[in-house]
Amino acid sequence: MPTWTLDRLNAMPAPDFGAALGSVFEHASWVAEQAAAARPFATVTALHEAMREAVAHAGTERQLALIRGHPELGSRVRRAEFTTHSQAEQGALGLDRLSEAEFARFQQLNAAYRDKFSLPFVICVRRHTRQSILREMERRLGNDAAAEPATALAEIALIARLRLVGLVDGPGKPKTDGRLSTHVLDIVRGRPAAGVRVSLFEIGESARASLREAVTDADGRAELIAGEPLRIGSYELAFAIGDHFARLAQAAPGARHFRDLPFLDIVPLRVSIAEPEAHYHVPLLATPWSYTTYRGS
Amino acid sequence: MPTWTLDRLNAMPAPDFGAALGSVFEHASWVAEQAAAARPFATVTALHEAMREAVAHAGTERQLALIRGHPELGSRVRRAEFTTHSQAEQGALGLDRLSEAEFARFQQLNAAYRDKFSLPFVICVRRHTRQSILREMERRLGNDAAAEPATALAEIALIARLRLVGLVDGPGKPKTDGRLSTHVLDIVRGRPAAGVRVSLFEIGESARASLREAVTDADGRAELIAGEPLRIGSYELAFAIGDHFARLAQAAPGARHFRDLPFLDIVPLRVSIAEPEAHYHVPLLATPWSYTTYRGS
Amino acid sequence: MPTWTLDRLNAMPAPDFGAALGSVFEHASWVAEQAAAARPFATVTALHEAMREAVAHAGTERQLALIRGHPELGSRVRRAEFTTHSQAEQGALGLDRLSEAEFARFQQLNAAYRDKFSLPFVICVRRHTRQSILREMERRLGNDAAAEPATALAEIALIARLRLVGLVDGPGKPKTDGRLSTHVLDIVRGRPAAGVRVSLFEIGESARASLREAVTDADGRAELIAGEPLRIGSYELAFAIGDHFARLAQAAPGARHFRDLPFLDIVPLRVSIAEPEAHYHVPLLATPWSYTTYRGS
Amino acid sequence: MPTWTLDRLNAMPAPDFGAALGSVFEHASWVAEQAAAARPFATVTALHEAMREAVAHAGTERQLALIRGHPELGSRVRRAEFTTHSQAEQGALGLDRLSEAEFARFQQLNAAYRDKFSLPFVICVRRHTRQSILREMERRLGNDAAAEPATALAEIALIARLRLVGLVDGPGKPKTDGRLSTHVLDIVRGRPAAGVRVSLFEIGESARASLREAVTDADGRAELIAGEPLRIGSYELAFAIGDHFARLAQAAPGARHFRDLPFLDIVPLRVSIAEPEAHYHVPLLATPWSYTTYRGS
Repeated sequence: MPTWTLDRLNAMPAPDFGAALGSVFEHASWVAEQAAAARPFATVTALHEAMREAVAHAGTERQLALIRGHPELGSRVRRAEFTTHSQAEQGALGLDRLSEAEFARFQQLNAAYRDKFSLPFVICVRRHTRQSILREMERRLGNDAAAEPATALAEIALIARLRLVGLVDGPGKPKTDGRLSTHVLDIVRGRPAAGVRVSLFEIGESARASLREAVTDADGRAELIAGEPLRIGSYELAFAIGDHFARLAQAAPGARHFRDLPFLDIVPLRVSIAEPEAHYHVPLLATPWSYTTYRGS
Repeated sequence: MPTWTLDRLNAMPAPDFGAALGSVFEHASWVAEQAAAARPFATVTALHEAMREAVAHAGTERQLALIRGHPELGSRVRRAEFTTHSQAEQGALGLDRLSEAEFARFQQLNAAYRDKFSLPFVICVRRHTRQSILREMERRLGNDAAAEPATALAEIALIARLRLVGLVDGPGKPKTDGRLSTHVLDIVRGRPAAGVRVSLFEIGESARASLREAVTDADGRAELIAGEPLRIGSYELAFAIGDHFARLAQAAPGARHFRDLPFLDIVPLRVSIAEPEAHYHVPLLATPWSYTTYRGS
Repeated sequence: MPTWTLDRLNAMPAPDFGAALGSVFEHASWVAEQAAAARPFATVTALHEAMREAVAHAGTERQLALIRGHPELGSRVRRAEFTTHSQAEQGALGLDRLSEAEFARFQQLNAAYRDKFSLPFVICVRRHTRQSILREMERRLGNDAAAEPATALAEIALIARLRLVGLVDGPGKPKTDGRLSTHVLDIVRGRPAAGVRVSLFEIGESARASLREAVTDADGRAELIAGEPLRIGSYELAFAIGDHFARLAQAAPGARHFRDLPFLDIVPLRVSIAEPEAHYHVPLLATPWSYTTYRGS
Repeated sequence: MPTWTLDRLNAMPAPDFGAALGSVFEHASWVAEQAAAARPFATVTALHEAMREAVAHAGTERQLALIRGHPELGSRVRRAEFTTHSQAEQGALGLDRLSEAEFARFQQLNAAYRDKFSLPFVICVRRHTRQSILREMERRLGNDAAAEPATALAEIALIARLRLVGLVDGPGKPKTDGRLSTHVLDIVRGRPAAGVRVSLFEIGESARASLREAVTDADGRAELIAGEPLRIGSYELAFAIGDHFARLAQAAPGARHFRDLPFLDIVPLRVSIAEPEAHYHVPLLATPWSYTTYRGS
């Protein structure tokens, strides 16, 4: 539950406002203090925008200090404690601890980043899997030293947006949630396939981690992720289609023993998520011998 | 290359015929000797049929002796040496050595089978994966003691059929080969998808083993297994669809950098094979955002 | 807008109630009068049920008189005036006037029905197309004389249900509306296809009639029929898919002249509706070279 | 059956060669006579190429005379006699006689063409439907007067190629045949759908003409057009899918009366053909509630 309403934040004395939102930008309560002057805000998005503006006009010195105020990612990744502000931000990082090889690669990239840019590597962890963090480290290592601070500040704004949405209730909240959903149709019967078990896995280079189990409802639908940003990365949805058709075959009058090795049993769909705030709807149209999947809406 | 032609076998003295085909039924050259009297054979299938007839009319004693003439499967499965006749019959068993747990289960099932039926467990290994052998052991353990010898003899006939087809050339050879093939269509362009890498894996309970790599030809087709029985079991075909569309996007005039995390990258299809001598054709119709697969023909 | 609320009907004197609902069963105000005694009704469905009960216990004489109170369908079908109660019930019968041949067949079936059953042919016209009315005439002509009155009374109950829902507002209204909708996905882009023109036709034996034009909204969706029963019969949905892809090709940077004869231009889907109160959702997943359609949900 | 072999044509005296192939280019035996000097030809394609070269180097005067040697298309289109050389070339023009409106448009376009270019409109009729001829007339009317003779000569080369392939047997024949085929898969059963009736129609602006009926073979396949060029234009393939599933439902043990109004009965696919010498393979993957079609290979 958010602690504040936008109305209260608009009405309170400036120092209280600064105190209320001081932790939104890590170790930089001056951002909230400056934004206080732009009150009242009609929307939470406008408030976030004003805080970004304060950063944008703060000058290079303060911007670099803001970046440097962020904890080093590398030293703690192994224990899934990427930042100090909120353990919760890291809690759901899907993959289990990094393998030795990945950890070594991580350490090396982190060191190379600090060497090149003299900055800690900052990223909005809640929008990423370990896999995509490694990928981003590699990609950003290729950036110009002059351009990289802007990238880091954009990530900091994303972190702040998530914190703000968690702290403040009010109209015009920016979209920070993504959604991953599915819909299973039994096209032998022209009906939703209810009661189908769907398992969601995160796919890393060296491992896969089970994230969630769901079962399709009476309309054949299941929500797999909602109410939080999706994490950029690769996933597998595994549908127990064989069980569905075996169940129906047994229910049919005069059904004989259903073959114990059906052509399709577990149907795996492997998809990647690139936009954390988007809705990924991935339906499955199935028969015992075929299926179709697509990015729906 | 087969050693004999049907014509030569039809023409040679009966003892030579018996010697030529004596090893077709394990340690039971009497089967070939009896079949000699039914010559000439118009087809290889008729020859196989005559040998099966000889077994069918041999009486229970000789039938049980025939089954008992087969080596114990269990003691050697770990080293992938299921029978003595032909190492080649075992060579392609897809999964790597059994895990400790599977081996223990195997030993236990094998012992239980011998206890219940006083027979070695006989199965036509070339039509099976380790996974399906374990499954068959479990299933056959549930059989009646009175009925099980018929099942074992049917497996011995399948073993003999494969050996016969390897030994004898001539008209009317029984079908012993299966086929697993695919066809990739790029339905964005309405054309076959050429040059798509396809990897074939065998899926066991505790492991997956890479069987083969193929690349689709100019018509989008690839043969994955041909010229041998398919092994009953579960498989995964993995298509490098992301690479295909990235390649085409780069070739397009004015192409910008292709997104490094496409919605679909590797498309896995998991299918089971239940009929070793059948043709399993598994096409893939793909866009960067959707695909359809089905058992084709 | 309904004339009455259920509350008012529950509260008014019995004779007023009888007058208010007297026309719900054609020329049979006694049905409403008897149902008055069962008040109060918690739901509109319960009210309808009570009226059906009154008919069910009225005895054969009165039931036959109720059926005979309905106008002859045959004499006026040509001018699309199937019943006297409400012209509106007939207004939307999709096909233009019957062809000479169909009219002759209609007249003949109607006469044969009256000869066999000594009853006018009664059917809930708003749930039917001309095609399905002809089909029902043929089918019911094959019924037992003893069983047919029950079929006619079931149709009369369907007619009454529609009239009741039109007259009375209140909780628990029975479902009388069907829905025909579509959803067009552009699976080349992994996005809804917005702005696609969809034409709906009713398909008769000798003609097809244009019912409606729609354009898909920003989410690729279009409602084709809603807020009324669907009419049992055959339909064609025609999607201007060629225009959609041509539009996008022209919008693309560096687009060349789009081929004037695309493989797919108008995509026709021909489906039949058998359940007037159901939701038929018929999506289309399209590329310029392929499409998939299915009964969705 | 071709009249000549390439070998004989290579060996015969030049005047005989000229006589043998004199009619390949309409009223222009000089083309064959000049090509004689380039003998021997290794392939029929090389022979055709040499004749095209003779035309290409003949100079504007002779080229225009060659075009003018072709009969007027317009005066006879109504009776489907587009050229004098070969009635057979016109015989299969799918649509019935043009409507009055189409004929009027045709006459007007033809007159406008002659006015603008002082040439008869020449087109390789066997590669076209009436619809695409009208479209081509309109398109070519927009051409530059300077450029249009090249278009007419390209059409004459296509006419000649077809005549040559009909007259001469030998290696390296140019491809002049197209192919339209289908393949119906019953994805409820994972098997080809055998015995499905497929009707082929040509779709014109004002009419549709039935071209052919076929029935899928045991492998679910049917050839619709082969051994001739496809005609550029729009087609409908209509599959009797409802009958197929009704048949199977009746064959199933314990089948009840199959619903007389199935969701899918006749499935129409409307496709356009733009390349007369190409293979258009249009499969259908069907259940009683869904289908997928695509341009296959």
